[in-house]
Amino acid sequence: MQEYNNLEKRFSEIIALRQIDAFLDWDRAVFMPEKGVGQRARQLEVLNVKIHELSTDPAVGNWLDKAEATNDLNDWQRANLELMRNQYIHATAVPADLVARKMNQETKTEGIWRKARAESDFSQVQDALARLLDIVRETADVKGKALGKPAYDALMDNYVPHMASSEVDAVFDDVAAFLPGFLNDVLAHQQEPLPLNGPFAIAVQEQLGRHLCEKLGFDFSWGRLDTSAHPFSTGIGNDVRITTRYSEDGFINSLQAVAHEAGHGFYDRHTPEQWQQQPVGASQNMGMAIHESQSLSLDMQLSRSREYWEYLTPVIAKAFGRSGPEWTAENVYRHATRVKRGFIRVEADEVTYPAHVILRYRLEKRMVEGKLEVKDLPEAWNAEMQKLIGAVPPDDRRGCLQDIHWYFGAFGYFPAYALGAFIAAQFGQKIRKDSPDYASRIRGGELTVYGDWLRDNVQSKACLYKPHDLIEKASGEKFNIRHFKKHLTERYLEKEYKG
Amino acid sequence: MQEYNNLEKRFSEIIALRQIDAFLDWDRAVFMPEKGVGQRARQLEVLNVKIHELSTDPAVGNWLDKAEATNDLNDWQRANLELMRNQYIHATAVPADLVARKMNQETKTEGIWRKARAESDFSQVQDALARLLDIVRETADVKGKALGKPAYDALMDNYVPHMASSEVDAVFDDVAAFLPGFLNDVLAHQQEPLPLNGPFAIAVQEQLGRHLCEKLGFDFSWGRLDTSAHPFSTGIGNDVRITTRYSEDGFINSLQAVAHEAGHGFYDRHTPEQWQQQPVGASQNMGMAIHESQSLSLDMQLSRSREYWEYLTPVIAKAFGRSGPEWTAENVYRHATRVKRGFIRVEADEVTYPAHVILRYRLEKRMVEGKLEVKDLPEAWNAEMQKLIGAVPPDDRRGCLQDIHWYFGAFGYFPAYALGAFIAAQFGQKIRKDSPDYASRIRGGELTVYGDWLRDNVQSKACLYKPHDLIEKASGEKFNIRHFKKHLTERYLEKEYKG
Repeated sequence: MQEYNNLEKRFSEIIALRQIDAFLDWDRAVFMPEKGVGQRARQLEVLNVKIHELSTDPAVGNWLDKAEATNDLNDWQRANLELMRNQYIHATAVPADLVARKMNQETKTEGIWRKARAESDFSQVQDALARLLDIVRETADVKGKALGKPAYDALMDNYVPHMASSEVDAVFDDVAAFLPGFLNDVLAHQQEPLPLNGPFAIAVQEQLGRHLCEKLGFDFSWGRLDTSAHPFSTGIGNDVRITTRYSEDGFINSLQAVAHEAGHGFYDRHTPEQWQQQPVGASQNMGMAIHESQSLSLDMQLSRSREYWEYLTPVIAKAFGRSGPEWTAENVYRHATRVKRGFIRVEADEVTYPAHVILRYRLEKRMVEGKLEVKDLPEAWNAEMQKLIGAVPPDDRRGCLQDIHWYFGAFGYFPAYALGAFIAAQFGQKIRKDSPDYASRIRGGELTVYGDWLRDNVQSKACLYKPHDLIEKASGEKFNIRHFKKHLTERYLEKEYKG
Repeated sequence: MQEYNNLEKRFSEIIALRQIDAFLDWDRAVFMPEKGVGQRARQLEVLNVKIHELSTDPAVGNWLDKAEATNDLNDWQRANLELMRNQYIHATAVPADLVARKMNQETKTEGIWRKARAESDFSQVQDALARLLDIVRETADVKGKALGKPAYDALMDNYVPHMASSEVDAVFDDVAAFLPGFLNDVLAHQQEPLPLNGPFAIAVQEQLGRHLCEKLGFDFSWGRLDTSAHPFSTGIGNDVRITTRYSEDGFINSLQAVAHEAGHGFYDRHTPEQWQQQPVGASQNMGMAIHESQSLSLDMQLSRSREYWEYLTPVIAKAFGRSGPEWTAENVYRHATRVKRGFIRVEADEVTYPAHVILRYRLEKRMVEGKLEVKDLPEAWNAEMQKLIGAVPPDDRRGCLQDIHWYFGAFGYFPAYALGAFIAAQFGQKIRKDSPDYASRIRGGELTVYGDWLRDNVQSKACLYKPHDLIEKASGEKFNIRHFKKHLTERYLEKEYKG
């Protein structure tokens, strides 16, 4: 047990420093004066060198070997130990010079990408991305050998652990076969809502955001809601911070972002307090697919439902002092569930969102596997867009330049977004099944019915189970996409699913 | 040079981590959700263990020995090296178990003090403070031996370096002989101003605070102004953050706090950028007397001057939409320079402020030297109050329980507050001498005339000189209190000083 205890002590230090790292990043995005960026980078560099030293210390390897040989650990401790091993492999697999080269090329490529995107000129960033992809492939090979996985799967292991790309292929192929036809049906079926004309004062949207937080169960004695260019969530336990962004043109996006980030925040809030300073208590170690299932539960399942808008519409109309035929719950609900063949992932509706993700997954996997070269990316992008969404972006800014991920070396993350939506649908049917008076409670403003179920059945388990086991225990079924298709069919075609 | 370079590398890491530490503390005071306090304490603990390890590493001692033996350092490097040695002595002088005992007793005593102060009951905290004082004396003895200084001076070395308590005694005795009679004269001379009746909306005070910042030269591209229970300043270089506090009853205190903290902030802003990650570029290493001279320059010298209120009064009246006979610059100036026999240091006027500080200095020195025991503190406090200010507080809450310093183990800090006021007066006369059109420029809103002089003559020198040398180079005279007496006489009796 001594070795296991040493590991707990060490990882609690690493986690405390990682919390600081995440918090410094939050501040950079939310409150830091613009000129502070250089100093902050230096602080993060020094901090991360310390984290790296603590993480790759050979003593950790020795403790792991000995702790793994003992039999007197309980379930939580065993799950904790397994995560420690995984993190140690990731931290030590890649030689220091490769880590440094990767970071260096990431920073360079991201800088060039910002300009290339602004000018919608892929050729500017093509060489830098190709060099970064070479380094990513090298990293994937090294990690693959250390983890005993194919190269792309080794990258996915950071974000979607315990899932093989072969399984993702099968699931995504199924959805990709379903979506284009379904999208045609939805577009033919949906009714044009009456316009909701702005401006919608941002101060009022902020009040509504705080009201929504509180109705969802997000408490400002342990959390904050602020503003940033891109909404995100950070923190853990008694200090969870989420952000949203506002536009005077509409209020739906800012409120959906609040619900989305609150979903992430609840996960970090509701893991068991005694494990929050250990890997098994850090929600992101369940992987981003499960994490996104929590945010998309609130953002897509709950906050695009008719009963939700039946509660919220009068609250919003009153806050803005508006009335008229367009301020019916039904009309606002139609806005919140509006489907279109758009080009931008982060603006996508619930129906086309998985298609945007599947496209990225297919392309990045081929890139890592050496089957697609950077120079051919724009063409491949547009071909997939045509196939999956039926629309080709007029320029690369609205195409393969839109997301930061690849240009900052993050390959293997994208599948989590769509998997999270599928899992959220699977949880959603169980939540409604477990709460017979579900719709009337939501309609009455009792929005915590959703979060309470997630807390009890998912979030409080932290990383005790593997993702597939957790999904099955919580939803009563093995992971599948039947509920996602059923959910889309019932919400967007308003008819029963016969899949 | 290799050893010196190793030291620069090491200290730049220590300083980056210390910046993070200070920043986490800023967040705790300004934005952290209330329940986050336990997690934050754990983060700070882990971070500070790392800082301590880096600071006390025996390699640092070896590098110091070798670097001190070389002759090829320039003036900045030599000053830097001397500060590194001083910090290494402080970090290594005290055995780890004594450090731990002190921290432990500090936390306990502070907790008990908060309750004792709220209930105005010194007896509750008497034993805890006595135990803490024992540990402080032990620490002072150990540090005194390591530094070759008397025990109290070894504590003062943290806050007022390069100044002996014998010198402080002489200066304070002189001021203490001057003040009581002077205070009588002022109280007899001063005229009752017309009342300025609130409420003064806090949103407007916030706008005025930002306006004042900008007029003083505080730029929000590298700084922030926020709100906290106790105003403070933190950060360095391109990320300086100050706070103030607001009450609807009046606007003068919040604006004076803005000027005060901006003064600290400018120091951290204007040290040479290339030294900001080294001890020689960290303004607090000049000691808190010099640091307070920068804040009190703006808070007392500038922002209690007639010409300052001639500029600011119409701006304020307009912001609040007020007018009437009480809204003359002369009347607001009388409010800003109002003197009274008060009990509370942080609310004290410019005349009685040094008396509050001298009292604390005398008592804490006697406590550290074993000449005053904790049980006799309230009585000693009240006796000094009677002697120096001519008023005895009705309870200990407004007496020896009012300041946190001793109850958190900070002995040796107090003298800096009054020394800073004296130095600020010495700089003030030189600023006015160096700028013949000084008063008309301030009257016209060109408030940067004050800060620019401080930047050029004090702040940009960082820790290149010893405090006494800096004062002499900047002001053209050795440190003395003639200018402080002259300043008080001219401002508060409105007559020429004949001291």
